[in-house]
This record gives sequence, structure tokens and C-alpha cells, in this order.
Amino acid sequence: MNNTEIETIVREVIKRSSAGQSGTPEPVNLPGSPVAANGGTVIPSMPLKLAVKLIERVEAKAAEWNMRVVTAVSDGAGRPVAIHCMDGAYIGSFDVALNKTYTSIAFQMSTAELGRLSQPGESLYGIQFTNDGKITIFGGGEVLKHNDVIIGALGVSGGSAKQDTDLAAYGRSVLKEVISCL
Amino acid sequence: MNNTEIETIVREVIKRSSAGQSGTPEPVNLPGSPVAANGGTVIPSMPLKLAVKLIERVEAKAAEWNMRVVTAVSDGAGRPVAIHCMDGAYIGSFDVALNKTYTSIAFQMSTAELGRLSQPGESLYGIQFTNDGKITIFGGGEVLKHNDVIIGALGVSGGSAKQDTDLAAYGRSVLKEVISCL
Amino acid sequence: MNNTEIETIVREVIKRSSAGQSGTPEPVNLPGSPVAANGGTVIPSMPLKLAVKLIERVEAKAAEWNMRVVTAVSDGAGRPVAIHCMDGAYIGSFDVALNKTYTSIAFQMSTAELGRLSQPGESLYGIQFTNDGKITIFGGGEVLKHNDVIIGALGVSGGSAKQDTDLAAYGRSVLKEVISCL
Amino acid sequence: MNNTEIETIVREVIKRSSAGQSGTPEPVNLPGSPVAANGGTVIPSMPLKLAVKLIERVEAKAAEWNMRVVTAVSDGAGRPVAIHCMDGAYIGSFDVALNKTYTSIAFQMSTAELGRLSQPGESLYGIQFTNDGKITIFGGGEVLKHNDVIIGALGVSGGSAKQDTDLAAYGRSVLKEVISCL
Repeated sequence: MNNTEIETIVREVIKRSSAGQSGTPEPVNLPGSPVAANGGTVIPSMPLKLAVKLIERVEAKAAEWNMRVVTAVSDGAGRPVAIHCMDGAYIGSFDVALNKTYTSIAFQMSTAELGRLSQPGESLYGIQFTNDGKITIFGGGEVLKHNDVIIGALGVSGGSAKQDTDLAAYGRSVLKEVISCL
Repeated sequence: MNNTEIETIVREVIKRSSAGQSGTPEPVNLPGSPVAANGGTVIPSMPLKLAVKLIERVEAKAAEWNMRVVTAVSDGAGRPVAIHCMDGAYIGSFDVALNKTYTSIAFQMSTAELGRLSQPGESLYGIQFTNDGKITIFGGGEVLKHNDVIIGALGVSGGSAKQDTDLAAYGRSVLKEVISCL
Repeated sequence: MNNTEIETIVREVIKRSSAGQSGTPEPVNLPGSPVAANGGTVIPSMPLKLAVKLIERVEAKAAEWNMRVVTAVSDGAGRPVAIHCMDGAYIGSFDVALNKTYTSIAFQMSTAELGRLSQPGESLYGIQFTNDGKITIFGGGEVLKHNDVIIGALGVSGGSAKQDTDLAAYGRSVLKEVISCL
Repeated sequence: MNNTEIETIVREVIKRSSAGQSGTPEPVNLPGSPVAANGGTVIPSMPLKLAVKLIERVEAKAAEWNMRVVTAVSDGAGRPVAIHCMDGAYIGSFDVALNKTYTSIAFQMSTAELGRLSQPGESLYGIQFTNDGKITIFGGGEVLKHNDVIIGALGVSGGSAKQDTDLAAYGRSVLKEVISCL
């Protein structure tokens, strides 16, 4: 989206808002914070096109690393947007990849970080038993941010925890580039 | 939110967008459609303050009608925002009210309408067996829209299906007024 | 039941409780619970009005501490009475806050205390795998007592375990004051 | 497995299938399935590349028909291979599309056909309550065959039952063409 398009949209927002609806909260997305100035929030979402392009980048890297993975991308509410299972990936990785995206969104951190905090004796030990079994506490889930706004999450499963962690971190690291090439 | 506040926010959007990020999709909420011009979407959300005020209105009407209900309000992604159980409400209504909000968001229609479409012989018969038991097919769940944008859902449970349907419809009907009094 | 009736009952509770029975757990009828005129066992209940006022106090403190939390209050049977999700709270905190109230009631202790007892090697290790995944074993859940009678539980989730623990303890500490202001 | 290898195998499939065995169901090794050199029974598999290409064709048609759908493709064992949620598709459609593929494989017929047989009074009434809630009984799920061998299933959800049925039938009808263009 270029500046002109953005300006067109926000001018439309101003126009509509000025059309006699003053006093009415308007669900306006304020990039930079999930909380809008009026106290309302919007949940940023993940376009399918972006999700698929990101998955393709992750899969290319997985192939390079000789991995067969399931890759999932969710939106900012933890709802799945796209999931791909590479040929030969573990059947059990479908659930794991999907839940890594849910977990990353649910607590707004990577599953690797949550894994550290949920070891026995650590402050969040026990979080893995919440949320109906959807919390995954080993690496491979990453929050996806664009301009400091969470727009979704990435989950990969299929290799060792170390490999999954590295692969998801790779995916997160190329997000900006993938967006710029859309 | 008044016009000045809205303008402040959108000017901030323009300013940030102009800061060298052209070519980068920006998650911008376009009121009037859940799909932004760049193909991205945002999920409008429900401020807690609005959810609670709406619940209070519904409860006042329920008391008038001699009902004791559970009232739930979710955001546009079907995630719960607030739930209140009136004294003496059925224990079983908690799950029902919550799932009426999920159902309304999941298929973007009232649960009463979905109930009609899911009777034996009707086109959606069987939808009640999907989504892990979270689909509720009797009245009492309503989509909440503001300026034609879905911002959440309302679910009530505690009376007869007819009473719940009427009460949820009442809640939907006063949404605009509740927003204007925030 | 209108406000006057609620006040009458709550004042009755306070009066009875003040009549020299301190130290003696006694089933007390709060509004919404079955009345046992003969003094037989009843499940103490949590009036919605009290639950919401308590949540509001907790949320005000959370805002002061720059936290965005989900706050849940259950009755003495561990059934939810009210749940509020502050704007921007973690999605995953809904389940956690709700189950902190269940856990506190289920074992009549704070979740912080249960957390200590359920570490590997400790006496209750394993309790976290019972009760269909509803046991939460880090701080933020507190039993709510009125004159030594358990009338419900408070669960908060959204910060670090330390923050949640402190916030729930704050909530418990202001319960008496909140009741006196009903 | 790289693209060249996939092409080799798919061309081999086509070649074999064209060698006078039409009409004869035969377990065919597609990429990702275990190779049974002796011709023993194997579970036919769905290459990710084919699944994604088919989904893209379905989505192009959905856009033409002004639909926003979730499209899922499973392998011959009913395991998911790829799922895409078009921007703005129903949240509830994820589960439905996925389970339409499972259902089609589970009973080797379209979900529309199963829907007819599972109405109250019909021969399979009750089948919808089996298989842990994964049976979907309205149109939109189709078995995918290549030269009379089931290689997977297609599930779409997002429109009316009629629209979903038509869209899935379209998807099934273009499968051969999609394979030939791999």
C-alpha cells in the first residue's frame, strides 16, 4: 500500500467520522498499538497472500536444511489463516504447528520463550496445562509484528526443537522482506 | 471519540505511513468493510467498557421480564470480552451464552437464523455438529455491528428460546444508543 | 432481585457475621444461593453486583500498575459469576483467569500456594493433571472469604506470575471494603 | 523432494494411469506416500504442490462467484495437506472445510451425498454423531480421484450449502487439468 492509498483511506475515515457521528466510537486501527485512543481495540489480521508467501519462504529454507515441516500462520486473534504440510512431514506436526501459532498469540511471546518460563520451578510452570491443551512450550512459534503491531503468528513443526526454533526465527526475520515483495 | 480525536489518530497514521515505508502494507482499519483496500483485513474488536455497558442494559431488561440470564459479549474474532451471570441464572447457561457469541461470529448471523437453516432437511443441517461442539442453534446470539462493521457478538441464555431471542435482539437494538452514551 | 433486596441480604450477612461468630466457618446465604432456613449446609454464593464491583477495583489497580488483565470471580462452588477482559489483555488469559478461580475453590487455597505444593518432588505434584485441565498452579487465584466463610474466588491473569499474585492478593484484601460499599 | 522429482513422479503416475488401467482402482504411489515396490497396498498421498495449486484454482473461482471461503485438501488417509482461509472467510469455516475432507475420505463419498443419506429417517441417520464430531453432512466435500484411485479430498466452506457444493464440484472437475500443469 503506498502513501496515496493510505491517505485515501484515512481521508475516508475522517469524512465518515465527520458525517454527524461525533460522540460515536469508531473502530479505527491505530498502528503502533493494539489499543486505540478511544479505548477500543482492533485485532490486526493476516492477509492470506502474505501468509502463503511467508510459508513458501519457510519451506524453501526447510528444504535447504533437509527438513519436512508443517508450517502454520495465524492472524492476530490466533485464528488459522494458512497451513501447509510438506510431503513426508509428521502427521502429528499439524496439531503442533497450529498450536504454536495459537500459543504465540495467546501470550504474545515465542513458544521458545514461554518454554523457558514454564519449566518446573519457573514462574509460569503450569501454563502448559491451560487453554485446553493448546499451549505448546517448545520452540517453533513466533509472534509476527509489522511496525510493532502484532499481525499474526508463525508456527513450524517437524524437526528437532532446535531446528524448529531456528526455522521459525528465520521466518520471523524475513517477514519485512516478504511484505515488501507482495 | 470525537472528530478531533479521530483526526489526530488518522493524521498520526498518515505521518507514520509517510515516514519512508511506502510499498509496505500497513494494517489499516477501513470502516465499512472488514477487507482493507490492500487486501489485508483487521478484526474489529470490542472495548470492555462498551461490552459491560451493553450487558447492563440487557440485564436491566431481563429483570423487567423476570429473567435471570447469563450475558456474554465477544469481540469480532469470537473471543470473549465480558460475561456476567445474574444471581440465580442456570449454571448451564454460562457455556450456552458464551457459545452463542462464538456461533454468531463464526457464521456472521444470529443463532436464531442459523437455527432455521440447520433443521433436518434444511441446507445447513449438520452445522451443529461442527466446531467442536461450540455451535449453538437456538435464539439468543446476535452479531453486533457498528456502521455495518461487525465489532463483536452478544449471547444471552437463561430463559426460553423465545425469551433469549427477544432479549438478544433487544441488546442488538440498543447498541447504537449505548455507544452514543459511552 | 433488586438492589434494595441485595443490600438487605448483604447487610444481613454482615450483621450475622458480626454477631460473635468470627473464627467459625458457617454457611451463609448470600443472594442467589438456596436459602436454608434451618441453617443446613448451603453453597455460599457470590452476588453479581459484588463480583463486578470487585473486578472494577482490581482493574483500577491493574491500570495503575500498567497491566492489562482478565479478571474472573466465581462463587463458592467454583462456578463463574463474572469475567472481564481489559482491552489488550492476552487471549490466553481468559482460560487461565477462569481456571484460577476454579482451582482456588477446588482446593481452598491460593493458586500460588498450590503451585508450591505441586512442583516436581513436592507433595501434590500431579494435581495439575487432574480435573480436566482446569487446575492452574501459578499465582493469581485467591479464595474470597467473608468472616471466614468462603464465598467465592478471584482469578487474575495478564502479567508475570508475581504481578498476578500481587494483584489477586490486592483484590482479596479489598473485598471487605467493597462489600461495605455495596 | 524438489520440483523436478515431484514432476517425475506425477508424470509417472499419469503414464501408468494412461497405460490401459483405467477403470481399475490401483494403489498409486504419489510423492510423500510410502513406496511399495511390490505393488502392495499403500495409502495414496497428496503432494503439497498439487494441493496448493488446486486450492488456488478453487479460490480463483470463489472470487469470481464473490465468495470468501476456506479451502482444505487432505491426502488419501484424510490427513490435512493444506488449508487456506481467504480474507474475510467465516471463522467457523475452518473446522467445517477441514472436516469435509475427513468426511469425504472416511466414507468415500461427497458430503452432499452423505448428507442425503443421513437425514432423519434415512439409512445413515446417526452417522453425524460418530467420529468425534468430525463428520460433516452438507455439501462442499469431494473425494479426489486420479484415474479412479482416491488420492485425497477437497473441502470448501464459506457460502451457502449450494454454493459450497458447486465450488467443491468445480474443484474436483479441474483436478486432472491441475495435475497436467504441475
